[in-house]
Amino acid sequence: MATPLDDLSRLCVHTATTKPWPLARALEHYAAAGVHGITVWRDVLAGPGLAGAARLLSESGLDVVSLCRGGFFPADDEGGLRRAIADNLLAIDEAAAIGAPLIVLVCGARPGLPLPVAREQIRAGIEAILPRAAEAGIRLAIEPLHPMYADDRSAINTLAQANDMAEAIGHPLVGVAVDVYHLWWDPALEAEIERCGRAGRLFAYHVCDWRTPTRHMLTDRGLMGEGCIPLRQIRGWVERAGFKGFVEVEIFSEQYWAMDQAAWLERVVEAWRAHA
Amino acid sequence: MATPLDDLSRLCVHTATTKPWPLARALEHYAAAGVHGITVWRDVLAGPGLAGAARLLSESGLDVVSLCRGGFFPADDEGGLRRAIADNLLAIDEAAAIGAPLIVLVCGARPGLPLPVAREQIRAGIEAILPRAAEAGIRLAIEPLHPMYADDRSAINTLAQANDMAEAIGHPLVGVAVDVYHLWWDPALEAEIERCGRAGRLFAYHVCDWRTPTRHMLTDRGLMGEGCIPLRQIRGWVERAGFKGFVEVEIFSEQYWAMDQAAWLERVVEAWRAHA
Repeated sequence: MATPLDDLSRLCVHTATTKPWPLARALEHYAAAGVHGITVWRDVLAGPGLAGAARLLSESGLDVVSLCRGGFFPADDEGGLRRAIADNLLAIDEAAAIGAPLIVLVCGARPGLPLPVAREQIRAGIEAILPRAAEAGIRLAIEPLHPMYADDRSAINTLAQANDMAEAIGHPLVGVAVDVYHLWWDPALEAEIERCGRAGRLFAYHVCDWRTPTRHMLTDRGLMGEGCIPLRQIRGWVERAGFKGFVEVEIFSEQYWAMDQAAWLERVVEAWRAHA
Repeated sequence: MATPLDDLSRLCVHTATTKPWPLARALEHYAAAGVHGITVWRDVLAGPGLAGAARLLSESGLDVVSLCRGGFFPADDEGGLRRAIADNLLAIDEAAAIGAPLIVLVCGARPGLPLPVAREQIRAGIEAILPRAAEAGIRLAIEPLHPMYADDRSAINTLAQANDMAEAIGHPLVGVAVDVYHLWWDPALEAEIERCGRAGRLFAYHVCDWRTPTRHMLTDRGLMGEGCIPLRQIRGWVERAGFKGFVEVEIFSEQYWAMDQAAWLERVVEAWRAHA
């Protein structure tokens, strides 16, 4: 590993992890807790506005790691496809405005739309926004989502599929995001991490844990260490693949969002040191 | 297709689909509804006892398609591994007693036990029970489960993994069960169905549907036609792979179990005709 595990210089927290906090509050607490990076979810931009958010982020001294999220390209008609592309162009402008070098793409799916068609729409959508991304110098990370989200969130459900698509698009600004929650079960994970690392396409690494039982498919993610994901093993694969970026904590949890968020952030930092 | 779709001769219903019914009641209603095959879940055996269940099944005239379920081989200690094997030997005796030619294996997993270790325990478990299965002439079907069950239900999560394991064991009594609920999202599904069909290892085919949203990870399966699974397409793959067996309805649903079961069974038969 590039740095000892108790060094927080590679700790990034997603604003969605502390969802009750507005951006200013999150930045203040993250900085005080020693968090070095922040991934900004678009819902926190509305409060301060784009220029206000940019100023808050710049004054905080934190690294802006990425903007979450673009994507959701598939649609049932032409109008839907156009609206999706427009929204992704807007995301590029937002990322540029706040100094985020990367947009994470949750690629999308529509129940009843055949998955191969959805994948084709995703590829076309990414290619449609690439010129603007290139102009702004913003990278795009295809994030494969767990197969339990193949109905309405993503038709890209394994790292192999994300790697295939990034390879097919073949542009230096297009890579993948590895999130342990979505991928831990996959027997091909180690090989596919090595594949995107070698190709210089491993753009982001997200951690949390998988609880047993999982009480809700979207909002019951676990804190690192309280589930069954072999976090240190996967981090080892990611680092052996050459990844030197932030280890980002992305936890959607009704349970933890109901806690005092300062106490919750303390637990996040502690768990990151001990398990991520 | 081997038969027109409105011919019920290949319709099999799992007793778990009409879980509130004891075996005698299920048989009576299935026969009256024109259902030709039954897959017996072990929980319905306790009421009538093994000999009683065997008699009921034989008198019903229905084909006993399989016994659900063996498996759950992985364990945290030697004692657990031994108990799992003992339970699977018992399942073989039960299958033989009721005339079920096949046992479906939900292979098992333990949170925190590395998946590769669990898979090795599964392979060892199947090999340990094979002599008894061979004596009884009972086939064993490895059923890959959806990746959302990789924590505590199955370390075999794709048809490729199930095919690999059946191939590695290399015994004519060991094959796979294809359940659309677990596998519909997999881009390799068509190719892997062709692979096991060609090898003579496609032993069972289960249908239901995937609802959006899915409100519970275990007990919110949809009726065929009310979800996003391309059922006719997958059935086409299965039949082109040479499968001529029953198309089995396996639906775990608190919602449907709360209905009048006779009315529910009518809907099942109708949906099977229209969509399966």
